[in-house]
Amino acid sequence: MRDVAVIGMGITKFGELWRSPLRDLHAEAVADCLADAGIERRQVQSAWIGCMSSGLFNGQEHLASILTDYAGLAGIAATRVESACASGGAAFRAAWLEVASGASDYVLATGVEKMNDGADATYCLSTAADQEYEVYHGVTFPGLYAMIAKAHMHKWGTTREQLADVAVKNHRHGALNPKAQFPQEITRATVLGAVMVASPLGLFDCSPVSDGAAAVLLAPVEVARALGKPVVRILGSGHATDTIALHDRADVSRIPVVQAAARRAFAMAGVGPRDIDLVEVHDCFTIAELVCLEELGFFEPGKAAAATSAGETALGGRIPVNTSGGLKSKGHPVGATGIAQIAELYEQLTGKAGKRQVKDARRGLAQNMGGSGGSCTVHILEVSR
Amino acid sequence: MRDVAVIGMGITKFGELWRSPLRDLHAEAVADCLADAGIERRQVQSAWIGCMSSGLFNGQEHLASILTDYAGLAGIAATRVESACASGGAAFRAAWLEVASGASDYVLATGVEKMNDGADATYCLSTAADQEYEVYHGVTFPGLYAMIAKAHMHKWGTTREQLADVAVKNHRHGALNPKAQFPQEITRATVLGAVMVASPLGLFDCSPVSDGAAAVLLAPVEVARALGKPVVRILGSGHATDTIALHDRADVSRIPVVQAAARRAFAMAGVGPRDIDLVEVHDCFTIAELVCLEELGFFEPGKAAAATSAGETALGGRIPVNTSGGLKSKGHPVGATGIAQIAELYEQLTGKAGKRQVKDARRGLAQNMGGSGGSCTVHILEVSR
Repeated sequence: MRDVAVIGMGITKFGELWRSPLRDLHAEAVADCLADAGIERRQVQSAWIGCMSSGLFNGQEHLASILTDYAGLAGIAATRVESACASGGAAFRAAWLEVASGASDYVLATGVEKMNDGADATYCLSTAADQEYEVYHGVTFPGLYAMIAKAHMHKWGTTREQLADVAVKNHRHGALNPKAQFPQEITRATVLGAVMVASPLGLFDCSPVSDGAAAVLLAPVEVARALGKPVVRILGSGHATDTIALHDRADVSRIPVVQAAARRAFAMAGVGPRDIDLVEVHDCFTIAELVCLEELGFFEPGKAAAATSAGETALGGRIPVNTSGGLKSKGHPVGATGIAQIAELYEQLTGKAGKRQVKDARRGLAQNMGGSGGSCTVHILEVSR
Repeated sequence: MRDVAVIGMGITKFGELWRSPLRDLHAEAVADCLADAGIERRQVQSAWIGCMSSGLFNGQEHLASILTDYAGLAGIAATRVESACASGGAAFRAAWLEVASGASDYVLATGVEKMNDGADATYCLSTAADQEYEVYHGVTFPGLYAMIAKAHMHKWGTTREQLADVAVKNHRHGALNPKAQFPQEITRATVLGAVMVASPLGLFDCSPVSDGAAAVLLAPVEVARALGKPVVRILGSGHATDTIALHDRADVSRIPVVQAAARRAFAMAGVGPRDIDLVEVHDCFTIAELVCLEELGFFEPGKAAAATSAGETALGGRIPVNTSGGLKSKGHPVGATGIAQIAELYEQLTGKAGKRQVKDARRGLAQNMGGSGGSCTVHILEVSR
């Protein structure tokens, strides 16, 4: 397999972007990415587009055609991939495989979702769960993660205050990110006093409904070297699935698919959690950040909550988590999220993260998850100068 | 890049399968495929699932999780890909890239669609066209292909009788396929006397609304050799996109994306149309088969119609086309179609096609298309014994 690098990134503002159609959001991220990489459209050979549910959200499938067409790339090979909220991570992995195989040299991995377009977002998102055995019985995604939170609290003594500290930390990070949907700092009192969505998760424990797009460009490491920029190499890629229904798993306080994907990524990379300088995790709900950090091996089971409240996962802490603001503050246009995570790592590793820069960041990890843990990708990136 | 082979196939009956849920159809095709290949579930590392619109048809996304779960494969890497009616071909290409890269040895490429589940199939399918610039103005897929047919008739003198001969030939083939949805022979009079859908296309010029699934297993050529079976190698893979909207193309009588994908596949394979023994083309409408055969280079522009009426594309003819019955007679569960085409080539090349066997078939080509030609994959397979 060829070694593969990320050579550029582009990301739109995340938010309720009522004036921006799906196709325009995607085209903007692609244009910014190619400008950042210094690569012409005619050099791009292929694109993998992560999007969860444009059929339900926008009445538009066939994104491989429409999105390349509007991005000025009609003609190239292009494929849309879907794995619920892990669609972006799955697109990145597919692009990596294509460049690694030797089939293509310049391959885009993009992600997009336009969730504010008139459709019922709760219904659209519920299609990531088991429609017949979960959704028909009334379960929603806040409800599923609330069950995970209850089980985690029962098992490890995790508190609502500790969950709130995840949101407070991510909003503090997001306030430093000009692309974030909610770049406002909040307090523990804001989170605890907010309207309850699904006990114990209140409004500020939940990521928002967002529009946005992100794009990264992949190329062989030799090509990246020739560009004379820092080389951000894909050191490890792990991908796993699990049962779609939460009730089919042995321990509801856990999300084992994260551990399975992480093991594969760490094994390929030949490094472990101690070798990572910053992490983007899938904090669709505050509880998800804690469970994922434990499954990834950054903390022992049950220990991530106290570490978060002690500031270990904040900028300047032992292992900064979600410096972008995470899904919570940056926003969560579901198909774009996995690519936005990679874009954040790329900016951090190339020293372009501005006010939220992690000093001397050399290795970063991105973890992107679908549904209540039915699928997960983990990617490890390393910079060399 | 590693050389890759197809080492097994499975396919469900195609039809209106009201008693079979999406997940069960997929599980049946996977089980049959693994049994055919002689490979255990625990050996499978990854799956690429082609499905166009399970969100709209079935209220279910996140197929990577639910379909591997119900196929007894939870844990593996899995990704759903979508490119409208070319979803299956795109899944096959992705699986090829993964094995070619060296990342995995046993990779499934599957396709599934359950179109009979209560949803409005015409609306669901319309999401493969440009929702804002085509569909909102009243265009449907029969309408789009009717415009292509009118333009082809005007330019080349193609007649309704010649279009009818495509359907008659494919039903004659399909009558030999036990998995076909409509395994009934028909006559030219049946086609010409049928209710008009979108002039000049009548009911029998259109492929049906279908449920079904198909699966093939890919592995490195060395692995295929070790199994002691005929080795069906993937000789060429071509993938291209074009504008999504028909009105953005220079010549409506053509579908240029097919030529673009074919050129890439033939260049990689190092062979040309004269080296191919049988072809599966995307006959979503009778006109599509004729245009695609011309774009693929099997006939000069404007010559496929007369050749079809002369029997050149029938079993026993110069170049048998759609020996499976094609989308017209076999059925067109859109996400499954591209994989079903590969499954047909595999059966033909390994001498297991029964009554529809093409004698001494050595090389086959499969062409799978999305929308009105917004995306296309072309694959060339070759057997060695």
